Amino acid sequence: MGRRPHPRNAQAQRSPWPRLYGRHAVIAALSNPERVHRKLHITHSAMKQLEAEYDLPKGFNVQFGDDSDLGRLVPADAPHQGMVLEVEPLDSRYLGDFLGDDFGKRPLVVLDQVTDPHNVGAILRSAAAFGAVALVTQDRNSPTESGSLARAASGALELVPWVRVVNLARALGEIGDAGYWRIGLDGAATRNIDDALSDTRPALVFGAEGEGLRHNTAEHCDELAKLPISSKMESLNVSNAAAITLYAAARRL
Amino acid sequence: MGRRPHPRNAQAQRSPWPRLYGRHAVIAALSNPERVHRKLHITHSAMKQLEAEYDLPKGFNVQFGDDSDLGRLVPADAPHQGMVLEVEPLDSRYLGDFLGDDFGKRPLVVLDQVTDPHNVGAILRSAAAFGAVALVTQDRNSPTESGSLARAASGALELVPWVRVVNLARALGEIGDAGYWRIGLDGAATRNIDDALSDTRPALVFGAEGEGLRHNTAEHCDELAKLPISSKMESLNVSNAAAITLYAAARRL
Repeated sequence: MGRRPHPRNAQAQRSPWPRLYGRHAVIAALSNPERVHRKLHITHSAMKQLEAEYDLPKGFNVQFGDDSDLGRLVPADAPHQGMVLEVEPLDSRYLGDFLGDDFGKRPLVVLDQVTDPHNVGAILRSAAAFGAVALVTQDRNSPTESGSLARAASGALELVPWVRVVNLARALGEIGDAGYWRIGLDGAATRNIDDALSDTRPALVFGAEGEGLRHNTAEHCDELAKLPISSKMESLNVSNAAAITLYAAARRL
Repeated sequence: MGRRPHPRNAQAQRSPWPRLYGRHAVIAALSNPERVHRKLHITHSAMKQLEAEYDLPKGFNVQFGDDSDLGRLVPADAPHQGMVLEVEPLDSRYLGDFLGDDFGKRPLVVLDQVTDPHNVGAILRSAAAFGAVALVTQDRNSPTESGSLARAASGALELVPWVRVVNLARALGEIGDAGYWRIGLDGAATRNIDDALSDTRPALVFGAEGEGLRHNTAEHCDELAKLPISSKMESLNVSNAAAITLYAAARRL
């Protein structure tokens, strides 16, 4: 499909550190005590906005630039709003930390091969909005922290614990053993999501756009369920499906 | 913010006609009797896939090419899946056609200044999935038909009537006069969406990401309502908010 690097993209990709951009993502990352910050690139006018909302510590590594200087740090047309923050990725969290009984019926979100950073970012945003316990993805075939993911997450990258596992099937085994009811979203299922959720403590499992859940992932679910959509449409965008499912899970609480 | 045209984007934009790409969007457009088709650019392998799903009429204007030929017709990295269909935009529909009593409690979706084609496309997809009557946008400050919008809509661009109006406030007046209950989604509202929906025939009004509803648009709603999200998050992605609201409206039917 001819993925040729755009000159500005290529330059942006040379950074070894994620570059977060946009007001929400940058302020959330600055406010997160577990986030290691390396350098803030900012315009003078954006600094005035920032200072109204956040007290930058003394000695913080700041470099002023104009809009086009900042534009060269991020992918073409990325809406940086005058702020680009170079950070270190957050430490991955351990699955075991989220398998205790402390979380009531709050859901766990599990993504199988969802690769689009905008979708994963939007799912983080909905996960934070509806009180999900954590996000679980497989190390391979899921995006890493990036500016576009963080922007789509609108601050939620700093709020929702993100567990990366080597083997998703094995992780689903542990999740089931811990008492979560593993519901795989699948348009071909016969049961509706509301019935499947009932009064469970759910782990909500979403597959990739197009392909859906892999066979081995579906095998490790307790139940498959569908959203009640018209037969005219095959499926929803995966972040929209996740938003609805998280809403349906939250309204039981 | 330095929006510089990418060479391949610039070329793609020279076409006077929308170029739809990707299997779902192209097959949906071919299957829509109201769609005027100009030319199908396709790879030989994609033609085999297409022929399994759709009978191309004799004499259809087809040009074969390889993946990179097709790549030059669409924005950089657009996942065309070997199919690019040049079309004429669909005729805009008249608001009056959707103000009768024939639609029961099915919702109307109204977008105020939602400009991102991916969001509008995903909203069309959810609108089709949950049986919305039509989409209403203002002519200015909303995207036109495009490949990226059609791809995000995954066929729904051909299914959901799209009404473009010159003056959104005036259109909301007519919508209210016709008996729709106009609910503006607003994170600062006190009432929850489920309570607002009740047993109304709703017109669901969504504002732009970030800014939300304009004052004059909110003034033309019967009621403002919010989604029940955590105080940790300011809002959801607009297509996710629309998906949840459409789901909540559909589950009453």
